[in-house]
Formats: sequence, structure tokens, C-alpha cells
Amino acid sequence: MKKNIITLFLILTCIVSSRISFAQDDPLPSWNDDTLKASIIAFVKSVTMDGTSTFVPVEDRVATFDNDGTLWCEKPLIQGLFAMYRAKQMVEKNPSLKQKQPYKAIASNDMAYIQKMSEQDLIKLVVATHTGLTEDEYEKQVADFFANAKAPNGKSVADLVYKPQVELLQYLRANGFKTYICSGGTVDFMRAISIKYYGIPPEQVIGSTFVYVYKDSAGINDIYRLPKLATFNDKQVKPVSIQYHIGKRPIFACGNEGGAGDVYMLRFSQGGKYPSYQLIVNHDDKEREAYYQEKDNKSLNWAKKYGWHVVSMKGNWKTIFATN
Amino acid sequence: MKKNIITLFLILTCIVSSRISFAQDDPLPSWNDDTLKASIIAFVKSVTMDGTSTFVPVEDRVATFDNDGTLWCEKPLIQGLFAMYRAKQMVEKNPSLKQKQPYKAIASNDMAYIQKMSEQDLIKLVVATHTGLTEDEYEKQVADFFANAKAPNGKSVADLVYKPQVELLQYLRANGFKTYICSGGTVDFMRAISIKYYGIPPEQVIGSTFVYVYKDSAGINDIYRLPKLATFNDKQVKPVSIQYHIGKRPIFACGNEGGAGDVYMLRFSQGGKYPSYQLIVNHDDKEREAYYQEKDNKSLNWAKKYGWHVVSMKGNWKTIFATN
Repeated sequence: MKKNIITLFLILTCIVSSRISFAQDDPLPSWNDDTLKASIIAFVKSVTMDGTSTFVPVEDRVATFDNDGTLWCEKPLIQGLFAMYRAKQMVEKNPSLKQKQPYKAIASNDMAYIQKMSEQDLIKLVVATHTGLTEDEYEKQVADFFANAKAPNGKSVADLVYKPQVELLQYLRANGFKTYICSGGTVDFMRAISIKYYGIPPEQVIGSTFVYVYKDSAGINDIYRLPKLATFNDKQVKPVSIQYHIGKRPIFACGNEGGAGDVYMLRFSQGGKYPSYQLIVNHDDKEREAYYQEKDNKSLNWAKKYGWHVVSMKGNWKTIFATN
Repeated sequence: MKKNIITLFLILTCIVSSRISFAQDDPLPSWNDDTLKASIIAFVKSVTMDGTSTFVPVEDRVATFDNDGTLWCEKPLIQGLFAMYRAKQMVEKNPSLKQKQPYKAIASNDMAYIQKMSEQDLIKLVVATHTGLTEDEYEKQVADFFANAKAPNGKSVADLVYKPQVELLQYLRANGFKTYICSGGTVDFMRAISIKYYGIPPEQVIGSTFVYVYKDSAGINDIYRLPKLATFNDKQVKPVSIQYHIGKRPIFACGNEGGAGDVYMLRFSQGGKYPSYQLIVNHDDKEREAYYQEKDNKSLNWAKKYGWHVVSMKGNWKTIFATN
């Protein structure tokens, strides 16, 4: 009897430890076990195996990821939520603003008006709410927002991050990749959460920028944020920003369909001397996230034309969010 | 007798090993053992000692260095040598250029003319010789230049690097600092040698930039370099470029007197929440390097006013170049 118990214990131990070992061996547990996941792992193995023709030296293993719609939701646009949050604060400080749109709509939660705002008007609102203060003041505002903010569905902003992508970033870094964000969001907004949400340090975040001036007078020794965009980091600007910032082509580039903002970054990653991998996230999961497609299907058409891989959020991701 | 030999052997071993240990303990062997060197070491110790009020977390240990006149010579300006090298190539390809200045003077080695060129004309020459081609073509040109170039004194360009500064960069990195170049030189020129000369990877180089456009047509998938400066990374622009690129204030900043180009970078490094260290290299060694001083002494005056440290190349550096 005692012998039997010991045998049973040993068998159980083996089962448990083999399961633990299986979980440890799977670098992408939120991805379904299919050909897409296998192709990512095959690519990473091929560029990290020394002595082969596909090997890429560690210093050239650069990976760039878009942010909105690629690493976290873009419906709602989280930087848009921050703009609303700031606009409300501005109205509190200066109530006469309430006479003017879009502040009037924001102060009264007039969602019908807000949802109909044009892209141009949204950019104007972002500029107005993100500038006219020093960098230190701005960073404090952003930190306060992320500490308290909720999305309209009640989730915390941190819960809008895609879990499979966090695993992918970790997996790439574990294989010597340096991971970067290259997004249309403004750079110092994303930097507030890049290490906490994605494990990406602020200096590896590339984004849109405002015109900055340095001020060293009247007790201020800081960057002052002027109400004017210096760069809008989208489409053909992304490869240019990568060249300014990194000076190397990515060999792994990931974006999303929705506004065709990432196709030139992915093309750029195909023009170097090394093997490379391109990935487009397709928002085709109405149930768990959102369904939206480009009118002209540019991103998915280019994916077919240039041999890029496509993530079906519905088909390829086992889990989308860390919490439901 | 045998015992005496053993004793002698032991004594010799002790002397030799204590010398080795001394050399290993000295992180800055090309710096004279004086109060300046002691102050650098004291600062590094103070920010790396966990549990003290002066401790700085490793992710915030950012060090920025100017390049020309700070890490290598700026008389002659090495990027100026490259401009001459490129101008000669351009004349070879298109002999009609020889009718025009400054190409005529460069082709005929008319040093009197070249030395009298204004700053404006020099910038024009740099723009003309660094642009109008793709990034891949440009990088090949720069690599060829560094492989073959000699300074007017016959030294190779690599021998114009200041040895004490290479030691300082290594010492900072050994203590968890991330070291950056932040220079007026153009970014992709410096990136060609940053890792080889300084141990600084290309993505940690910040410099002046040309206007870039991304081209994906007619067989080209590359950045195209337009003949126009996007930023001239000098004076008040340096803190701004640091904010765009790093998003953190340096806690160690080093520049040189000569054109007062670094004073705002050093001031910026004093405005954060951490202890910080500022260093200005003074070109006061006519014998071993060069002697030149600002007319208004701005850099040295600000050093006094704001408590920065000054390197006398003559007094503080035991060795300046790896080869003489």
C-alpha cells in the first residue's frame, strides 16, 4: 500500500512537472498553436542560430511595433481619452472655455458631438491639451491620467493592452531583439507607460512630436511644449523616424490594418541585407475586441503582395486581454 | 639558499600582483591622479550606492557627450575632412564642378582658400557632399572614408580620439550608465564609428539631421537624403534633441569650450530631481593637442557660475591619444 502511494506520488509529480515544463517551453501561450505562431518561432530561431546563412548579429536584431491598434486598442483612442481628461481640467481652471466647442461638448459629456469630430478637429484638440506647459508639468498630468483613467467600457487603461503582443515582445527580447514602439501617438505620452505595459524603456519609443524649445530663465530649466506638431509619425514618416532614431532597419516590424499607417514601416524592414518578418494585426473580432476594415484594404493587399503575415485576432489569438 | 629563493619569489609575486591589482582598480589610467579624477569617481560611487539619498536607479543613469572637441579633435573638423574627400570624388565624376568654388580649391588642395571659408560656406559644402543619395549609398561612402582617411598630420582618424574619454565612457557604462553622443555632427556620419571608437551603439547617437524622405519605387526601398538640414544640433537645440530621443535628462553631461555649443545641454542636466555632474573640456594644450579659447569665455564662465567641472587637457590628462 505504502509503495503504491509512493508510485502514485511519483507519477503525479511527473505529470505536474511535465506540464510546468510545457508551459515554460511555450513562449506565446496566448497565441493559438497554428502555422502563424509556428512561423514566428521559426523566424526567431533562424536569425538566432549562429553559423547559419540566416543568422543576424544581436546588435542588428531590431523590432519595431506600432502602438494604437497593434499593442493596445485604438477604439477608443487612448490618447483621445487623455485629451478629454485634460480638456475637462482646462475648463475647470478657465470656465469661459465652456462657451467654445469642443470644450462645451466635452464638459457636458455630449458624446454625439464628440464622436462626429473630424480628424483635423481631433488633432487640434490634442495639440491644445498637450502643449503650452513644461515637460515636467506635462509628465505629471500624464502620470495622473494613467493612475486613474477608465475606458468608456469601465476597463482600466492597462486592461486595453493585447496580452499576445506583450508575450511576443518578451519573446523577441529573450532572443536578443531590441524592441521599439514606432507609433503615431505623441512620444512623451507613450513613454509614461512603455516600460510598465510593454517592458520598453522610454528611449526606445518613437512617436509624433511637438515643437519643443529649451527655456533656461525665470526659474525654469526645462523643455517647453509649443502648440504645434513637429512630426506626425505615420505612413512614410515612420521609416524616416526610425532612421533618425535607430539608424538601422528593423528586421521584425508589426503594425495593424485600420488606417494603412504601418505599410511603409513594414516595406522598409524588407529592404535590408538580413532576413525579415512582417506582421499585420487584423481587427476582425467583433465579439472580443472590434471589427473594422480599411475601405481599400491596402494593408491586407500589401500583405498578400509582399508576403507579410497577418494576425486574425479572432483566429490566431487564444486570449486578447489579460482580464475580460 | 633554496628558502631564500622561495622568499624572493613570494615577494616578487606580491609586488607584481599588487601592481596588477592597482592597474585594475584604476578605471581612468589616462587621467592624472588629482581632485578632478577623484570628483568623477566620487560622483559615480555616490549615485550607484543603493540605499543612500544620492542613489540613482540604473534606468535613469543617462550620460551625454558632445563629440567634436569632446571625444575627438575638432581641429581639423573630421566631418570637414569627409566633405573634402566627397568633394574630390564628385569632381572626378563631374569635372565641370572644378570651375566652381569651393570645388576648385579642394581639387587643387588650395589650403589658403579652404581655411578662409566662412561657417556658412562650410555648412553649404557639408550639405552638398552628404546628400542627394540614398542612406545605403551614403553609409558606404562614410565607411570607405573611415577605412582610408588620414588627418593632415598623417594620423589615422581613429588616432584623433581622446583616450581618457574612452576610459570615462567605459567606466560610466561599467557602473550602469547608458552613454550617448549628442553632437553637432550629422547623425549618420558619427554612427559609422560610434561603436568602434567609443563603444556607443548607433541608436545612442544624437546629431544634426538632414531632411529625409522614404522612397519605395523604381527599385529603391530606402531613405533618400535631401540637401537641407532638418536640425542643427547645437546650443539650445541639444536639450530638445535629448528630450525627443531619450525622454530623460542626463545626470552626467560633458562638452567642451570652443564654441559654447554645450552649455545648454549641461544646464539641462542640472534641472532634474537627481544629483548630476557636468564637465567641460578646456583646449589648453598647444603641445599635445591644440590651444583655443572662446572670445567671451562663456563656457568657462558658466562652469564657474554653475559649479561645473573643467578638464584642463594639459593638467588633468596624463595621455591624450592612444598613439603619439
